[in-house]
Parts: sequence; C-alpha cells; structure tokens
Amino acid sequence: MASDSKTACLIVIGDEILSGRTQDANLKYLANWLNGEGIQLAEARVIGDDEAVIIETLNHCRKAFDYVFTTGGIGPTHDDITALSIARAFGVELELRDEIKDALGAYNDKVPLNEARLKMAYIPLGAELIENSVSIAPGFRVENVFVLAGIPAVMRAMLEALGGRLVGASCVVSKSITAFIGESGIAMELGEIQDRYPGSSVGSYPFYKDKTYGTSLVVRSSDSAMVDAAINEIIGCLEARDIRFEFGEPDDD
Amino acid sequence: MASDSKTACLIVIGDEILSGRTQDANLKYLANWLNGEGIQLAEARVIGDDEAVIIETLNHCRKAFDYVFTTGGIGPTHDDITALSIARAFGVELELRDEIKDALGAYNDKVPLNEARLKMAYIPLGAELIENSVSIAPGFRVENVFVLAGIPAVMRAMLEALGGRLVGASCVVSKSITAFIGESGIAMELGEIQDRYPGSSVGSYPFYKDKTYGTSLVVRSSDSAMVDAAINEIIGCLEARDIRFEFGEPDDD
Repeated sequence: MASDSKTACLIVIGDEILSGRTQDANLKYLANWLNGEGIQLAEARVIGDDEAVIIETLNHCRKAFDYVFTTGGIGPTHDDITALSIARAFGVELELRDEIKDALGAYNDKVPLNEARLKMAYIPLGAELIENSVSIAPGFRVENVFVLAGIPAVMRAMLEALGGRLVGASCVVSKSITAFIGESGIAMELGEIQDRYPGSSVGSYPFYKDKTYGTSLVVRSSDSAMVDAAINEIIGCLEARDIRFEFGEPDDD
Repeated sequence: MASDSKTACLIVIGDEILSGRTQDANLKYLANWLNGEGIQLAEARVIGDDEAVIIETLNHCRKAFDYVFTTGGIGPTHDDITALSIARAFGVELELRDEIKDALGAYNDKVPLNEARLKMAYIPLGAELIENSVSIAPGFRVENVFVLAGIPAVMRAMLEALGGRLVGASCVVSKSITAFIGESGIAMELGEIQDRYPGSSVGSYPFYKDKTYGTSLVVRSSDSAMVDAAINEIIGCLEARDIRFEFGEPDDD
C-alpha cells in the first residue's frame, strides 16, 4: 500500500455479537465505504459492553490509526454505555444537548421523552454531532473517533452524513479475474507476480460454485497502472497454460 | 458472568475481510460453538495478512485469554502466512509433517503435490494437528492457540473435530422474550432488573418486522435459576403494564 494511505480501525461494541446472537453487518459495509473515501480499514475489534474494555481499546486504537469508528451501544438502555465510556476515555463530561432533546421530543409524540430516551441527548463535551436521518438520535465525533449506531440502517445513514468529510488518500483500485483452476495450481506464479509488484496486494480466494472449482484472483493498489500491469501478467500466465478464466468475480462466494 | 468462566478470543486473519470483499461468517458460528463448550467469546480481532501484526496480536491475546482461535491464512498461496507467523510468535521452526504430505498426495492425484500444496504440510514444531474432513490440509494447536481454516465449511469441520477437547466451565443459558414496545419504553425497568441480577447479562435489541416495532429481551447467565428469575421479573413487568409479548425471539432480525 502507498505510504501516504490513511488507516482506520473499527471497534464493534456489543455483547450480542460476541454471544453469537447477532451477525455483524457493519464491518463489510464500512470497509467498502472507506474504500470510496480513500481510507484503508486496517483492523477491526469486537468487544463487549464493558466500560474498562471500551476505554482501553479506544485509547489504544485512536493513537494507532488515523481514524477510529465505533458501532453500537448508543441507544437508550442500561447496556448502552458507549457515550459515557468515550467521554471517560477522553477525560471529558457528558453534556445535555438541547437540540437533540428537542428533536427527540418532536420526533414521536406517542413515545414519552422519558429518562431512557433522554439519555441519547447526552454527548461528550465538545463533540460534533453526526446526523441520523433514520431515527433522530445522532452519532458524534470526538477528535479522530466517530461514534455510530449499531443498527445497520442507522449506521449507514450516519456514514452518508459523513461522506466527503474525512481526509483520505488516493482511492484503492481493485480488479479481479476468475480462474477455473484450484488455488494451489496457480499459487507459485501468483507469488512471483506479488513479488514484482510490492505496491499492490495480490489475493487469491478459492471457491466452489455450480459444481466447479476455481479461484478468484484480486489485485488491489492505490496505483491503478500497477493493478493493470499485475492483472495483465496474471492473464498472460493463465493464457500460456491454457487455463480458462473470466473477468470479474463469481456473483456469490 | 461467573468468575470461573473460561474466555476465548478469535483472531480473523485476512486482507479480504478488511477490504470489504468477503463477509466474515466464522465469528458468529464460533461464538455459538463456544457457548456449547461452556466457553465465552470475550473478544475478536480482524487483522490483515501481515506477519508483524499477526505475531504482536497473537502474543498479546494468548496471554490475555484462556483460548485463542485464529481463522484464515493456512492455504497454499503466498498470502497464506499464518503457520509461519504462529511459529515465529512461539519461537519455533516449521516442520514438514510426513502424515500430511502423504494425505495430500493421496487425496487428489489429479492435482500435483507441488511446492504450493506442500506448504500446507509445514506445521510449527510440536503442534497437535486438528483434522480437516473436508479438504485434508489440517489445522493445528500450539499451547492454547487453535489455528483453523478461513473457509467456513472447513473451519466448521475443524471445530467438529475439536468438540469436547477443550476444558470449559458451566454452559451459558439464555432465554428471551419478544416485547411489542419500543426499547426506550422498557429501558428503565430493564436497568433495574439488571441491577438485581449482576450475575446475568440482560440485553435488549430493538427490531422492526412485518410493520411492527418491538424489542427482543435476552437474559444470559451460567446460572439457569438466575435466568428464570430475571425472565419472570420481565414478564411480571410487561403484564403489569399490559404490554403484549411472546416467548422467544422473532425468526429473523
């Protein structure tokens, strides 16, 4: 990867992911959104609803990566402790934001603005709000940390509100080839191609579909000319060995 | 959770997860498998195919948790560097295991046992093999670290081979209620119930299904009597407020 690339870390906060109850759907979506912003998702962590763990993980990651995203734990219930934990990680207090209180009150007059709902109006002091067009209660940013909802539709709405507001580097380009040969049959040549293009990432992913074995070959780099050169070498290698291939990847894998 | 509970950490190794290409399917499966073994998945990390990062992450996690599982990076290609990285984390060499070499050679005589496939027969010195009934090349265990394949069908076969071989604590029991009320409408009572049962975990998960809003309420504990007591308090609270509910969770959420 290019040395000027920006890195991000995702911290998924939620006992329900670690207990096996809920399938995370935010990592893949965020990774692709970041690709479009020219930022590379470099690591992800899944942790429970535990204040000490949230603080320790956050304070490590916000120094180790350019951007940190969290998902989960900003709702109204007792296990939603993300906002308070983030405030404590930064050593600031929670502040009642009147604009959130007013919006929550106006949003649904059938649901009383009780103590639980009002909790979502308390945000770390000095944080910038991230709009939630789905269910009103906003996310927020403190320094390089972006705190988003865990519910996928709400998390995606918050990313939409953030679009273009982060400083990225050049976007990563990827191209792929589907080769109808087992992974080990092409492994040595791929390794040699990877060695010749150290600024790219050459990946191979075996699949079995419609009773056919094959391998998806994916080249990624922020240098699109390098992607083309590496892909052309792969094509040359497949043609020389008379191995059938298609451009792109299988629809499902 | 009970203080005698055993903890596990999953390290998902693979650029393809972080790039957004591939949806991880192993975390949720492993979490549920561990529940059955009486072990709690306490954290998960997703990292790239980077030797230094694998070594640093592994050496941290194998001290911090009772068990560590890794998925991914044990195939035949240049980006499959998990076995070598694990060996280096433990300060041992890779060793050619003749039983794997023989099995790979016998498995498919149409695919030559080339240098790439033979790579899968090199295992950290002293490791115990974990059978792979799907595609032969095994996983392995070094001390408290279990190294599994990334392909879900293979990873699951390896877990099946491991069943009953880990020392767990008492299994975690969970019961759930579907309440037809928004999360904030029940949040305060839930917080009070959680406070009365600190040995349990009371979770609430909002859903929207068939044009109906509701909240799944889940109580988890290794003490099944405590689960029943907390669930009964929740039911009492719902009945007292005339809130409609069902046992169990919605089929999809």
